[in-house]
Amino acid sequence: MTMSLELLSSNKSFGGWHKRYRHRARSLDCDMTFAVYLPPQAEARSDLPVLYWLSGLTCTDENFMQKAGAQRLAAELGLVLVAPDTSPRGEGVPDDPDKAWDFGLGAGFYINATQQPWARHYRMHDYVVEELPALIEANFPVSDRRGVSGHSMGGHGALICALRHPGRYRSVSAFSPIVNPLDCPWGHKAFSNYLGEDRSTWAEWDACALLAKAEERLPLLVDQGEQDSFLTEQLKPQALQRAAEAAGHPLELRLQPGYDHSYFFVASFIDDHLRHHAAALSTP
Amino acid sequence: MTMSLELLSSNKSFGGWHKRYRHRARSLDCDMTFAVYLPPQAEARSDLPVLYWLSGLTCTDENFMQKAGAQRLAAELGLVLVAPDTSPRGEGVPDDPDKAWDFGLGAGFYINATQQPWARHYRMHDYVVEELPALIEANFPVSDRRGVSGHSMGGHGALICALRHPGRYRSVSAFSPIVNPLDCPWGHKAFSNYLGEDRSTWAEWDACALLAKAEERLPLLVDQGEQDSFLTEQLKPQALQRAAEAAGHPLELRLQPGYDHSYFFVASFIDDHLRHHAAALSTP
Repeated sequence: MTMSLELLSSNKSFGGWHKRYRHRARSLDCDMTFAVYLPPQAEARSDLPVLYWLSGLTCTDENFMQKAGAQRLAAELGLVLVAPDTSPRGEGVPDDPDKAWDFGLGAGFYINATQQPWARHYRMHDYVVEELPALIEANFPVSDRRGVSGHSMGGHGALICALRHPGRYRSVSAFSPIVNPLDCPWGHKAFSNYLGEDRSTWAEWDACALLAKAEERLPLLVDQGEQDSFLTEQLKPQALQRAAEAAGHPLELRLQPGYDHSYFFVASFIDDHLRHHAAALSTP
Repeated sequence: MTMSLELLSSNKSFGGWHKRYRHRARSLDCDMTFAVYLPPQAEARSDLPVLYWLSGLTCTDENFMQKAGAQRLAAELGLVLVAPDTSPRGEGVPDDPDKAWDFGLGAGFYINATQQPWARHYRMHDYVVEELPALIEANFPVSDRRGVSGHSMGGHGALICALRHPGRYRSVSAFSPIVNPLDCPWGHKAFSNYLGEDRSTWAEWDACALLAKAEERLPLLVDQGEQDSFLTEQLKPQALQRAAEAAGHPLELRLQPGYDHSYFFVASFIDDHLRHHAAALSTP
């Protein structure tokens, strides 16, 4: 152990282990909890690939691990799953003054805030891209082969993590992502607070804007429910499609009839995403 | 619709639908919520088999549907899943005076109470064996081919439902069941309150006692985690094994090394149980 990890709980799952840990996150200046699923292969191997899962608004590390049903196939594929929390937490970490669910605690948006009082703790981008993978790679039997996926705000997180850091991830996918925070109410609220009113700084954290200048053409797999109640106001997957077409970036956007924004939707298609990641991650 | 069902929510899941309903339960004299998973086959067929899932202490209809990951295989097998709540609810329904989690609300034990103040509402046995199946069979595209399974208190429920009503279920299984409430603290607390201090009445609701006089030899499939923190004080699966051996009743008791009492355990083995039920339920 190169950094201090406190084991909070451990549950055997599909022959492997679901474990929750707490640690001091330097980038966020607070204690953080994350969950890891170690497939059975972790007992014999030390070079497993890792899929990072970024959750949506209001979630913690628990939602994905309890509701997505990903462990069954991860155990088969030999894929480690890591689920961080969605924002800094704890005493001294500021929250939305109105305790809104779409900003502040539970809503870190996977960016680095520049404005006060947010800038001290709300640096989720550095946390999920740098600090957490370093911790995982130092303490678990994994390689540096990384994939990233997520849901809603976490789908946005997955896309910007991959697009901002060419070479860092071998695969990326998203469920119901916020693809264009520059052009939706959730994005406006979060970015104006975290980044300030100068919108020229926002584009660095917008998947559609980043696609236009992406140095790496990592294929994007995106699932979106057609009955998602946030579809037309917040999510607007067509914006991603237009940006991908304009940039010549490979995108498989699957509109799924009848599906909503819930984990019932995520669970229905998680296997496809795990296979998408495993295919890219399985080559040494 | 022969009885009034209020649809509370609907989520597409693995090509089928997860739906929650509220209805007036006559046997319980209160409103009840239950969940049903309708696999894709429900659109074309009207004779699907039904697996009733009885949850454990503190649960509602939601735990199993959100955490067990059963819908994937149920969709493949064409199995309808029904998850009732674990006790009567609502204004006027008495709770444990100390609000304990192991008695009263969330802890109906799937029996019919005879003592006051419980006897008016706490008739979960009649509800899950008679009223709910009648409602399901009148309102959904199902046959009268029924299986029953459950977890912990709900495993006890599944066993006593099948053992008390020969011919009513074609298949039964349980995860971490309370097999011998006559001989464990949870059972003593619940039964002394619901049934009174005359222990001769308790045996009618005890799987081990019922096995001795079972008229039907329905094979029992039971999974039990060896690291379950309730194993030695509350669950004692060896009592079921002894009772089955004494009665010549078919029992497959699987002790699963490393697994605990959580839904991570249930999810790990739910597919085996679904196949066990589907095999018995698939013959017309």
